[in-house]
Amino acid sequence: MTPVIDALQYANWSEKIFRQMRAGGVDAVHVTITYHENFRETVLNIEAWNRWFERHPDLIFQGFTAEDIDRARQTGRTAIFFGAQNPSCIEDDIGLVEVLHRLGLRFMQLTYNNQSLLASGCYEAEDTGLTRMGREVVAEMNRVGLVVDMSHSAERSTLSAIEHSSRPIAITHANPAEWHPARRNKSDAVLCALAESGGMLGFSIYPHHLKGGGGCTLQEFCDMVARTAETYGLAHLGIGSDLCQDQPDSVVEWMRTGRWTKAVDFGEGSADAPGFPPMPDWFGGNQDFSNIAKGLRASGFSEEDTAALMGGNWARFFRDSFGPATALVRQVAE
Amino acid sequence: MTPVIDALQYANWSEKIFRQMRAGGVDAVHVTITYHENFRETVLNIEAWNRWFERHPDLIFQGFTAEDIDRARQTGRTAIFFGAQNPSCIEDDIGLVEVLHRLGLRFMQLTYNNQSLLASGCYEAEDTGLTRMGREVVAEMNRVGLVVDMSHSAERSTLSAIEHSSRPIAITHANPAEWHPARRNKSDAVLCALAESGGMLGFSIYPHHLKGGGGCTLQEFCDMVARTAETYGLAHLGIGSDLCQDQPDSVVEWMRTGRWTKAVDFGEGSADAPGFPPMPDWFGGNQDFSNIAKGLRASGFSEEDTAALMGGNWARFFRDSFGPATALVRQVAE
Repeated sequence: MTPVIDALQYANWSEKIFRQMRAGGVDAVHVTITYHENFRETVLNIEAWNRWFERHPDLIFQGFTAEDIDRARQTGRTAIFFGAQNPSCIEDDIGLVEVLHRLGLRFMQLTYNNQSLLASGCYEAEDTGLTRMGREVVAEMNRVGLVVDMSHSAERSTLSAIEHSSRPIAITHANPAEWHPARRNKSDAVLCALAESGGMLGFSIYPHHLKGGGGCTLQEFCDMVARTAETYGLAHLGIGSDLCQDQPDSVVEWMRTGRWTKAVDFGEGSADAPGFPPMPDWFGGNQDFSNIAKGLRASGFSEEDTAALMGGNWARFFRDSFGPATALVRQVAE
Repeated sequence: MTPVIDALQYANWSEKIFRQMRAGGVDAVHVTITYHENFRETVLNIEAWNRWFERHPDLIFQGFTAEDIDRARQTGRTAIFFGAQNPSCIEDDIGLVEVLHRLGLRFMQLTYNNQSLLASGCYEAEDTGLTRMGREVVAEMNRVGLVVDMSHSAERSTLSAIEHSSRPIAITHANPAEWHPARRNKSDAVLCALAESGGMLGFSIYPHHLKGGGGCTLQEFCDMVARTAETYGLAHLGIGSDLCQDQPDSVVEWMRTGRWTKAVDFGEGSADAPGFPPMPDWFGGNQDFSNIAKGLRASGFSEEDTAALMGGNWARFFRDSFGPATALVRQVAE
């Protein structure tokens, strides 16, 4: 049976949520473990996850390879794969790429919304593309099997990462800008280059990325998925819900401002609505993944295509992405 | 064929030394990666090792499990297992035990020569035994499969670690004090408790631990091994050469004084001879392991017993020690 995989969540983790993952039949989740934290702080976050794994071995375990998706399914648990939404965790030290990969990091965004040492975020006025260090780090990520994620990056930087990376990259959580022109959603040029290079897009259900926000209906969402599949090919698509379940608004503030400003930055929010936006009624948490599958079937997707969108495509991508680069991959890159 | 294993080295690593490991037929080495370094500094040392592994994949690779000893032998390389000579690398954070184990740490001394947060070193006037944190950390090391090493620890602390640990511990590099009463060599009480609990002693060839220092002959060394085997049982014995090949004297200064004093501490040396002592002529480096095997045979050990001493016993200990505690082990501990 095809697994169900969510390619991005950052919830306020609890036993309740882990049980909802089981209720929703979610076999694997890419979870954000760090935003603006430096290496040592990121390791503290890993330690916190180690305590979750130790406390709830019947519900979750850490995933390192695609085989862990099968193991999750076979043992009725959810495999948790780590990711970083910003490269703060590698500081200015390329050697930390391999160290964090060893600790289980499987995705890393080259930027959050701002300029990083590696590339430009989608809120910057100037878009540098990959920096000198950015090019080196992408090559190192390719070598060890750490996926480049450009969800929060600017246009030129994203195209540059796709071009420079010797392995397919991911945009784990965003939607087509053509459908809803939010700054975080992606242009046709980016989605074309992503699909052509074998990359993956995870559809976001974060209300700011949805046409109509939290009022977006399941049918509207699934029709958008259908049009995207027609344009870019279904094999490159999956879910990356961007679910921030049970998080207090202080967390969205941390995501947006970290330690880079003393002022307030509302990001995708506004002074009137600075907090997390309310979720659509058809997706309130991990227990609701079957709603998405039902919606896709109702939109005309076959059972097979629905399974591919719900996790089969991500499973293939995980399998091809998390191991060391093979000689073949290196050859293509040269 | 039985593997050759050295249970402690801290050389000034170079391609030359890795080639000498191959010349000496050394299949696995426990290398010290950190003394007084904090966690972040220890990770920098791991990064330096990652560069060695990347540069010399034909000579060495990082060992994580006992199976890597076989892989080393089959592929004509040396498996490098990481160890810490002091718990500075876990700072005051028990969560770092699991993190460092994930990064490949397989041995950790609870103390170097001084008091640590966990226990007392062999140069302290007062010997606390295991501290509150020490007991917690030993239990955590037992859980994840990180070996307790008491080579540089004080008597009571060592006995307390043997008693408290639910899994056999190691003294990776020391000799019986009865043969040569150096402060770093071990009492009959310690060696009895070690052997009775299934632990391992690695014979040191560091001149300060040898009767007669660098002038100790191979026969004297091997006769001492024979007497130790008669007293404590051959199954608990191996080699832990404590080889510090090609190190400048600034390194022995760092080992002894770290950042804990502004004065000079000569440790096992003296004002007249503050540096590394000259090695015995029969053991100048990794290429000389066959000399030890020849010496043991000449001292009357059978081929089988010689193989056990040269690595077979350590291979068994590695196999039993580096994985997570089994339910059985935990039961015994309760």
